[in-house]
Amino acid sequence: MLDKKNKILIIGLGLMGGSYARAFTEKGYFVGAIEKKESSLAYALEKGFIQEGQSEPKADLIGKYDILIFALYPHIFTEWVKQYQHLIPKGRLLTDVTGVKGAIAEDLQALLREDLEYIGAHPMAGREASGIENANTEMFRGANYIVTPTEKNTQEAIDTCIEIGKTLGFSTVSVLSPEKHDEMIGFLSQLTHCIAVSLMDCKDAEHLARYTGDSFRDLTRIAKINDEMWSELFLLNKKALLAQMDLFSEQFAKMRDAIAEDDQESLREMMRLSTERRTFFDKKTNR
Amino acid sequence: MLDKKNKILIIGLGLMGGSYARAFTEKGYFVGAIEKKESSLAYALEKGFIQEGQSEPKADLIGKYDILIFALYPHIFTEWVKQYQHLIPKGRLLTDVTGVKGAIAEDLQALLREDLEYIGAHPMAGREASGIENANTEMFRGANYIVTPTEKNTQEAIDTCIEIGKTLGFSTVSVLSPEKHDEMIGFLSQLTHCIAVSLMDCKDAEHLARYTGDSFRDLTRIAKINDEMWSELFLLNKKALLAQMDLFSEQFAKMRDAIAEDDQESLREMMRLSTERRTFFDKKTNR
Repeated sequence: MLDKKNKILIIGLGLMGGSYARAFTEKGYFVGAIEKKESSLAYALEKGFIQEGQSEPKADLIGKYDILIFALYPHIFTEWVKQYQHLIPKGRLLTDVTGVKGAIAEDLQALLREDLEYIGAHPMAGREASGIENANTEMFRGANYIVTPTEKNTQEAIDTCIEIGKTLGFSTVSVLSPEKHDEMIGFLSQLTHCIAVSLMDCKDAEHLARYTGDSFRDLTRIAKINDEMWSELFLLNKKALLAQMDLFSEQFAKMRDAIAEDDQESLREMMRLSTERRTFFDKKTNR
Repeated sequence: MLDKKNKILIIGLGLMGGSYARAFTEKGYFVGAIEKKESSLAYALEKGFIQEGQSEPKADLIGKYDILIFALYPHIFTEWVKQYQHLIPKGRLLTDVTGVKGAIAEDLQALLREDLEYIGAHPMAGREASGIENANTEMFRGANYIVTPTEKNTQEAIDTCIEIGKTLGFSTVSVLSPEKHDEMIGFLSQLTHCIAVSLMDCKDAEHLARYTGDSFRDLTRIAKINDEMWSELFLLNKKALLAQMDLFSEQFAKMRDAIAEDDQESLREMMRLSTERRTFFDKKTNR
């Protein structure tokens, strides 16, 4: 289980790593960091988000820590483990913040030392802005945290990871298989970003602002997107995401047909269903 | 031009008609109403939104008013004019709140008496909730109001209609042709509602709430929809809406192709474009 004596090492001080560091420090944990970018490291030290930090992975620093949390781009994360896992003492717990799980779990399990344990986790929080300068712990409130164990994980690791989510301040902590997670995230998060980007790409924005209502604003808020990170996540979750995109296209085509055929009753039926489901969703999320 | 001596008659006290009545009364205008539903009429009188009201159109009431604002469903609006326009003294100005313009303008111009003038207007504000009980003038702040004159309109009517938008408290008042309006609204408002409804209809909401982030919540807020009104508006704007739906489908398919082909560079390019446009959009709308 998680304990205040556990020292926590954050690898990667971007928006998420920075926010994690800040949250753990506020809760009284000893937090260190490894971050290539000297300015981010300096910022975290100056703001008191971390107690210590280095720009290169070294055994003496890493050796002090009980839990290693990776807040890196997926391909950098697996590369890091491949290159530096020999610096980690045996028995330590590794976890992450990566937005896809199946592909990562497979890769990591294939290369991770037998005496280390990795357990996946996905904090479903974010901001349009990136970088440690935007780090904040507010975004965890009301948000969901998903732990994605495989059959290789111990119950102790699962429990610790659940505690991490709660300690960070997430409102809901769930446990899902990596496959279920990827399907869920493909639908709820990746598909919605695909839609927002596609919609924003349809037309030049020059003249839209003057005539817009809230709808377009709401639907394109997430079209402001970190292209490097999201394109990587999309491709890592390709199979699940394509299935969700096709599911949406099918519904959208059904609506198009109803309009083309002046089939008002089918249109209304689709709208009544969406209204009913969204009303139910509101109740469930207390919004 | 609009003047406080102008008496204003609202026909239809739903969410929009009720909010209009409330706003004009707050600004010191004499406001009356015609509304079939006795309970809505009683509510408006009790709350002081109107000075007087009747449930049936009668010459003595209508005769008092200078400006008639129709806040009815589109097909009821044209029916009303057909049936009751003989009760309106000559020279009076008619305007509306209908969300499509081309179809309405055509219909009305074909049937309206020569000595009356109709000028279209579209208040781009709304709520998920309907009915006069939800009437509020807050929703006009920060919102857009579009006047849609045809070549049949006088400059005086255009000016009066612009003043109506300003008096109600809309932040931006624009003038557009009915055709341009319908294209713009097809894209900004109707297409976004088609997307939200389709997305919400994809899956049972039962298990979604637990895992959702803000994205899905934002993209489906407007999936709670008045099916009677919106299905009618969609079909009245069929041609423009289908064109906008196809434009979106094209972009969405382009993104799907990029993912299917592991074409990260194309994906990133689409994301960079959406990020740039949305950033520009934010600046223009000061959000």
